[in-house]
Amino acid sequence: MSVHMRPEEIEAESFRIIEEELGPHDWSAQDWPLVRRAIHTSADFDYARSMFIAKGAVDSGIAALKAGCGIVTDTTMIISGMSKERLKQFGVLVSCYVADPQVAKDAKAQLITRSIVAMRKGARDPKNGIFVIGNAPTALYELIRLIREERVRPKLIVALPVGFVGAAESKEALKELAKEFPDLPFITNTGRKGGSNVAAAVMNAILIQAQSSPAF
Amino acid sequence: MSVHMRPEEIEAESFRIIEEELGPHDWSAQDWPLVRRAIHTSADFDYARSMFIAKGAVDSGIAALKAGCGIVTDTTMIISGMSKERLKQFGVLVSCYVADPQVAKDAKAQLITRSIVAMRKGARDPKNGIFVIGNAPTALYELIRLIREERVRPKLIVALPVGFVGAAESKEALKELAKEFPDLPFITNTGRKGGSNVAAAVMNAILIQAQSSPAF
Repeated sequence: MSVHMRPEEIEAESFRIIEEELGPHDWSAQDWPLVRRAIHTSADFDYARSMFIAKGAVDSGIAALKAGCGIVTDTTMIISGMSKERLKQFGVLVSCYVADPQVAKDAKAQLITRSIVAMRKGARDPKNGIFVIGNAPTALYELIRLIREERVRPKLIVALPVGFVGAAESKEALKELAKEFPDLPFITNTGRKGGSNVAAAVMNAILIQAQSSPAF
Repeated sequence: MSVHMRPEEIEAESFRIIEEELGPHDWSAQDWPLVRRAIHTSADFDYARSMFIAKGAVDSGIAALKAGCGIVTDTTMIISGMSKERLKQFGVLVSCYVADPQVAKDAKAQLITRSIVAMRKGARDPKNGIFVIGNAPTALYELIRLIREERVRPKLIVALPVGFVGAAESKEALKELAKEFPDLPFITNTGRKGGSNVAAAVMNAILIQAQSSPAF
C-alpha cells in the first residue's frame, strides 16, 4: 500500500477484496452494504453468513434517521464508532446511559445490571426510537421485555451483543419475539460474535444509505 | 443466564467457558490474561493462535503505566473502550489526535492520512510513550518509521490494526523492525483481524495486571 492512498481509496479497495474473496452471495442490494461493512470492520467473513436483517428494517431505520429519531446505545464505544458528521446532518442525538451515576445507583439498589437500567431510561424518552446494542445481552433482554410488556415500539433495533454468556441466546430470543411482532425492524446475527465496532459499522452503513436516499 | 448475575460473575463465567473450550495452550501466566480478554471481547478464538506478545512487553507496559506515561491511540473508540477508572488511578492521559482540526489540515496539505500526522504529533510529546493502534495500518507504518528514523522509543506498542489493505503487512513490518530492535516492547497479532475493541481489551488486561503488581 502507498502512504499516499486516500482513505476513500483504501475503503474502496477493501470492499473490492471482500467481494472478490467472498464470491457470489444472496444478500440484496440494500442489505449487502451493511454486511460488507460488518466484515470490513472486523476482517471476519463469518458475518456474511451470520447476519440477519429483517425485511423492512433498513427502510424503517432510514425513515427514523430522517425524522431525527434519537439513538440509544449500550456502550460509549458505539457512539465513538459512528460517523459524527453524518449524525449531525440528520440532527440525530445519541445517548448511552450506562455511565450515568443515577443509573449506577438504581442498578445497585435493584441488583440488576446498569445496562438494564440504562435501556429502561432510554426507552422512556419518546424522542428515542433506535436501539443499538453491541455489548450486553442483558440490555437486549430488557429491550425485548420493554417491547413485549411495555409497548415500546422501536423504529430500528441493531442487536449485536458479543460474548460467551447469553449473547447468542439473547439474539435467538429477539428472533422469537419477531414471531409475535412480524413487522419488528431488527438487525442481528447468529452466535456469540458481535461487538460495539460491528454495531457502529452497521449503523454507519445505514446512515450512508439514508444520505443517498431520494427524499434526503 | 439470570438477570441478577453481576457483571463480575458474567465475566468470570465467560473466562471459564473460554478456557474450557480452548483447552490446553502454551501462553504464559502473564500473557494469557491479555489473550483471554481479546477472545472475550470478540468471541473469536483465532486470537488464541494469532496473538504475538514480545518478551518483556507486558512488564515494560506495566512500568510505563505506573510512571504515568501518556497513551496515544489511533481511534477514539479505543479511548471509550479502556477503563476510565483504572487509567485515572495511574494518572495516565490518553490522546487521540485524529480528530484534531490542525491534523486534518496538515494531512490534506501533505496528501497523507490523518492517522500518520496524528501519530507524529503523539510521538513528539515526550510525556507519551504507549502507542495503541486498532484501526489504521498507516498509523503503524508511521510509528515504525518514527522508531527507525527518528529515535522514538515506545515503552509499549499495541498494534492491532484491522482490515484488508495493509493491516496484516504492517504487523509483519513491525515484527521485522523487532529484529533490529530486540527489546522492542510490542504486542500484535498475525493477519487481518484486530480492531479498536480488541486493542482496548488488551490494554485493560495490562491495566488490571499493573494494579495488582506488587509495587503499585
